[in-house]
Amino acid sequence: MILVADNLRITLPAIGRAMERLDPEPIRQMVSACMNAGAQAIDINSGPLSRSPEEKMTFLVRTVQETADLTVVLDTANPRAMAAGLAAGSQKVMINGVSLEPVRLKRILPLARQYDCDIIGYLLGPDGHVPTDASGRMEAAVALFNEMQTAGISPERIIIDPVVAPLAWQDGNRQNMTVLEVIRTLPDLLGFPVRTIAGLSNLTTGAPDPGTRRRYQGAFLPMLVAAGVSMILLNVLDPTIIRVAGLSQRIAGRTVFSWQ
Amino acid sequence: MILVADNLRITLPAIGRAMERLDPEPIRQMVSACMNAGAQAIDINSGPLSRSPEEKMTFLVRTVQETADLTVVLDTANPRAMAAGLAAGSQKVMINGVSLEPVRLKRILPLARQYDCDIIGYLLGPDGHVPTDASGRMEAAVALFNEMQTAGISPERIIIDPVVAPLAWQDGNRQNMTVLEVIRTLPDLLGFPVRTIAGLSNLTTGAPDPGTRRRYQGAFLPMLVAAGVSMILLNVLDPTIIRVAGLSQRIAGRTVFSWQ
Repeated sequence: MILVADNLRITLPAIGRAMERLDPEPIRQMVSACMNAGAQAIDINSGPLSRSPEEKMTFLVRTVQETADLTVVLDTANPRAMAAGLAAGSQKVMINGVSLEPVRLKRILPLARQYDCDIIGYLLGPDGHVPTDASGRMEAAVALFNEMQTAGISPERIIIDPVVAPLAWQDGNRQNMTVLEVIRTLPDLLGFPVRTIAGLSNLTTGAPDPGTRRRYQGAFLPMLVAAGVSMILLNVLDPTIIRVAGLSQRIAGRTVFSWQ
Repeated sequence: MILVADNLRITLPAIGRAMERLDPEPIRQMVSACMNAGAQAIDINSGPLSRSPEEKMTFLVRTVQETADLTVVLDTANPRAMAAGLAAGSQKVMINGVSLEPVRLKRILPLARQYDCDIIGYLLGPDGHVPTDASGRMEAAVALFNEMQTAGISPERIIIDPVVAPLAWQDGNRQNMTVLEVIRTLPDLLGFPVRTIAGLSNLTTGAPDPGTRRRYQGAFLPMLVAAGVSMILLNVLDPTIIRVAGLSQRIAGRTVFSWQ
């Protein structure tokens, strides 16, 4: 299982300022911290990048890859920024992501094929909404997997994100049980050992305090690992959560167990 | 999900002495503590009871039920002690348990029918060994469920224990993934919403220290809850583990979520 840091967010003031000024130092510090905490990949959540998207994404990708040997997950809805990030990145780059929304399929899938890179497909319907029940999510997964292959994406390149629901949503807990079911059953359903990813931080949107957030994430994470998720997008700078990730992997792993 | 305290063990010196002397006070203290911690049932792990088993089991069951309104889980391999416990208990009593071992089937099943009580069936083969793979466990579950029904036990009375393996066992982690699979798939396999139970403390047999034990149990417990286990046998006097049980239930629950 691969840990993907979701810590590099433009919404953090220090990161937002660094991007505006093209100042690499705050970004390098964050990237180093994430790598030291055990991240093997880092999500670049750049926001919409309305002004000079190419320049900023290029700066971000180069800064990350000059600092650490991490896969860069390009998390932007801006196709120009995505293209610039793919061009700037070395081999270790991933698209986050595409869904059944027609505009995304049309603008993002050709980039995935052109750069022959991993791409995350997340389970929204063509209307941009999360399907409300298990069968809706399964249908969206099959449809998306097929769309991506039809567009020339190799199935080995596809990573499905069943979209973790905030617990505070109406029906959020039930939806997340469906998320686990999708992760567990998708390889059988598709007849292919497709990889999956889950965003853990989504779970606790609206949590009243950091302790509550940590405790709920720490209880859901083992469920994700037992379901067989391939990658988890999370705050790698929380040592409690990273410890739970390690414990869960040792329990659910196929390797010889040892206490540490 | 029901929490069953496994704290009342004859191997604890204070409990062992109290049982020898038929002194109720140490037992009452333990039972009260377990009830206050959230237990809805308590396992009486009385050991073999080679001397005066009836008297001792009667004393234990009465002491527990005079102290608290808890279901008593009679955990003994001694059929005479089991019969005495069933006779002493009020309605709230459960047999732990039976397996495919012929001597147990023959001596325990008639008691379950006579007292019309819940009974735990644990997945050992007729030779008393845990099946080594998933299909072996599934076959044992089906065989045991059928044996119990043939003996006149109603399916509503049956609780299947797929036997959590110590992580330190060779292949323990893989076996426990099978345990989760059994819990998840057994109702479908049997065509009946059979209840299941898992013993959490087994997981960490041989753990080097209490912190390690707590951390591994805290990571496996959410996996059990997500799999849909009906009852967990555990140390209810560990507040960390009880907190994780509550969090896991709120995440995996079908009720409206709230942070507390």
